[in-house]
Amino acid sequence: MQNITVALDAMGGDFGPRVTVPAAVQALSHFPELKVILLGDQAAITSQLSILGYKPDARLSIQHCDRVISNSEKPSLALRNSNGTSMGSAIDAVASGKADACVSGGNTGALMALSRFRLKLLPGIERPALISALPTATGNKTWMLDLGANVSSDADSLFQFAVMGSALAEQNLQRAPRVAILNIGAEEIKGNDLVKRCAEMLSNTQSVNFVGYIEGNQLLHDFADVVVCDGFVGNVCLKTCEGTAQLFIDKLKSSMMSSSIKGWIARKLFSGLFNELKTLNPDQYNGASLLGLRGIVIKSHGSADVEAVTNAIGEALHEVKRQVPSRISDRLEAVLLERHY
Amino acid sequence: MQNITVALDAMGGDFGPRVTVPAAVQALSHFPELKVILLGDQAAITSQLSILGYKPDARLSIQHCDRVISNSEKPSLALRNSNGTSMGSAIDAVASGKADACVSGGNTGALMALSRFRLKLLPGIERPALISALPTATGNKTWMLDLGANVSSDADSLFQFAVMGSALAEQNLQRAPRVAILNIGAEEIKGNDLVKRCAEMLSNTQSVNFVGYIEGNQLLHDFADVVVCDGFVGNVCLKTCEGTAQLFIDKLKSSMMSSSIKGWIARKLFSGLFNELKTLNPDQYNGASLLGLRGIVIKSHGSADVEAVTNAIGEALHEVKRQVPSRISDRLEAVLLERHY
Repeated sequence: MQNITVALDAMGGDFGPRVTVPAAVQALSHFPELKVILLGDQAAITSQLSILGYKPDARLSIQHCDRVISNSEKPSLALRNSNGTSMGSAIDAVASGKADACVSGGNTGALMALSRFRLKLLPGIERPALISALPTATGNKTWMLDLGANVSSDADSLFQFAVMGSALAEQNLQRAPRVAILNIGAEEIKGNDLVKRCAEMLSNTQSVNFVGYIEGNQLLHDFADVVVCDGFVGNVCLKTCEGTAQLFIDKLKSSMMSSSIKGWIARKLFSGLFNELKTLNPDQYNGASLLGLRGIVIKSHGSADVEAVTNAIGEALHEVKRQVPSRISDRLEAVLLERHY
Repeated sequence: MQNITVALDAMGGDFGPRVTVPAAVQALSHFPELKVILLGDQAAITSQLSILGYKPDARLSIQHCDRVISNSEKPSLALRNSNGTSMGSAIDAVASGKADACVSGGNTGALMALSRFRLKLLPGIERPALISALPTATGNKTWMLDLGANVSSDADSLFQFAVMGSALAEQNLQRAPRVAILNIGAEEIKGNDLVKRCAEMLSNTQSVNFVGYIEGNQLLHDFADVVVCDGFVGNVCLKTCEGTAQLFIDKLKSSMMSSSIKGWIARKLFSGLFNELKTLNPDQYNGASLLGLRGIVIKSHGSADVEAVTNAIGEALHEVKRQVPSRISDRLEAVLLERHY
C-alpha cells in the first residue's frame, strides 16, 4: 500500500493541539497507509503527544511554526503575513509535494486565499468552492457547494461549481450525478438572474446531468446528488439545517435524560430513533473540501472534536485516493470542449 | 366592536375554494368582528358554501371573478392582465377601502407586483418585503424578512426591511426589538458588501436596536427578535428550516405510529413532546405579511390547509387592529429625521 501524507494545521480550530493531536494519533491507528505532518507550536504539540504516550516516528512528524492566523484576520492580510504560520505551512507542504493533502480548521477566508495563491487554480476555474456531503432521509448523500468559500458569485462560477461537484460526486457514486440549483421555487420563472443564467448554461451542457431547481425544504430528501448555490446562500442554508436538526435532537435528548421513569422509558423507546436523527444532522460530518485547486485542501469545522477531525483526515485520504483534482480537470476539459464546438 | 373586512382570494393556493371557503366560514365563527368578501368563481364558492350549509349573509359576501392568476405567470404579465382576476380584485378591494386587508395564497411574485402597483408603497420604502414569525426554542418569536418578495436587494432596501420589521415586532413585543442581520459569520469582517453596508447603516441609527450578525444555526434560538436578509436567502433559509423540522417530526411520528406495544407506549407518554416539536416547525404557522405598502396584504402558503388559511385571516385582523402600515410610517419618519439631521 502506498503511503499518503496529510499536513495537519495543528493550531487550527477552536481547540488547537488539544483536539488536532489526539485526532492525528487516532487517524494513524485507523488508516495504516497514513502519514501525518503536524504543523504548529512544537512545545504544545509535544506536550499533547506525551499525554497520549506517543512520540514522533516515521509516520508522525512535527514541523514547528511560530505563528497562527487568527479567525478575525482578513484574508488579504493573512495572505501578506502567512509565512511561518501553521496554516500557510500546511498548504506549502502540499504545494512542494511534501504532503498529498492538507487539513485545517482555521479561518476559512484565509484558507481559501492562501490555497488559491500557493496551490493555484485548475485551468478553467475562476474561484474555488467549498463542498460537503449532506445526509438524506433515504440514507444517501447530497453534495452541496459553495458552502462559503466565496461571499458572492457570478453565473460562470456557479456553472464551474456544478461541473466540479458533479465530478466529485461521480467519483463516489460511479454514475452520472443529478445536479440541481438551489432556488426559491421550482418553476422556470423563479429566482434571480444568477440562478437563471446558470440554469441556462447547465441545460445546454450534455456532460452534466442537470435536473433543474431544488428548494430549501427538499435538501435532505435525496432529490439531487449535487446542489449548487452561491457561497452566502450555501453557508446560511447548511447552518440553518444544522441548527434546526440540533434543536430537535436536543429536545429529544432532554426527554431521554430525565431521571424519572418516563426518562427511562424514553431511553428504551427512542435510543434507536435518537441515533438515526443524529445521523441526519449535517454537523455530524466533518471535512469540507476546497475544490478547484491543483491540490487537496480539507476545511475542518472550527468546533470539530477529535472524532470530527479524524473524519476530516479520512476525507483527505479518500480524495487523494480518488485523485479528485485530476478528475475535475478531466471533466472540465470535456465541458469546455463541448461548449467550444 | 368595530367590524373588520377581509378580502379573501378564494381561488389562491393549491386547493382553491375547497380550502378557502371552509377557512372563511371557520374564521367568521372564531372572530366575531370579522366580515369576509370571497373573491373568485361564484359557482365554485357557492357549491362549497352549500356543502357547509352556509349562505352569503351580512358577514360573508361573494364577488364573482372570472379569472385566476396562475402560479407560473410572470409578475410583469400578471400586472398587465390582472383585471377581473380574484387576486387583483382582492387587492382592489383594499385599495378602494371596501376591505381593510386582503389574503391570498396565490403567485407570490404577482401578489407583490399587483400590491405595489395598486396600493402604492409607503413614503421612504423602495421595495415591499415578506415577513413572518418563526418559533424559537424558548417559546418566543423571531420575525424574519424578506422571505422572497424580492429576488435581490440593495443595502438601502435591507435597511428599510430592518426598520419595517422592527416596527412590526415592536407592536407585538411592546419593547425595542433586537434587530440582527443574517450572515455567514458573527465577526465584523464576515459577509458580502450587502450585509456589511446595511450593518454600517444600522449601527448609525439610534432608533433601531441593532445587535449585529446572526448565523443560520442561531435562527431558532431567540438571539434576535427581527432577522433581516435578502429575499433569496430568506426564502431558502425558511424552507430549509421547515424541511429539516418536518423530516425530524416525520421520523418521530413514524416511531409513535407503530402498531407495536412500543408505539402505543410512545403515544401515551410522549404526545406532549411530539406536540412541542410540531410547534417548532415554522411551517405550522401561516400568514406572511407584505410590509411597506399603504394597505395590509397577507400571503398564505400555497399548500395551506383550512386551519392555516384561518390563521392567515387571523393575522390580517391582527394587523388591522395594530394599524401596522401607519406604525411603519411613523417609524420610518423617525429614522429619516434621524438620518437627515
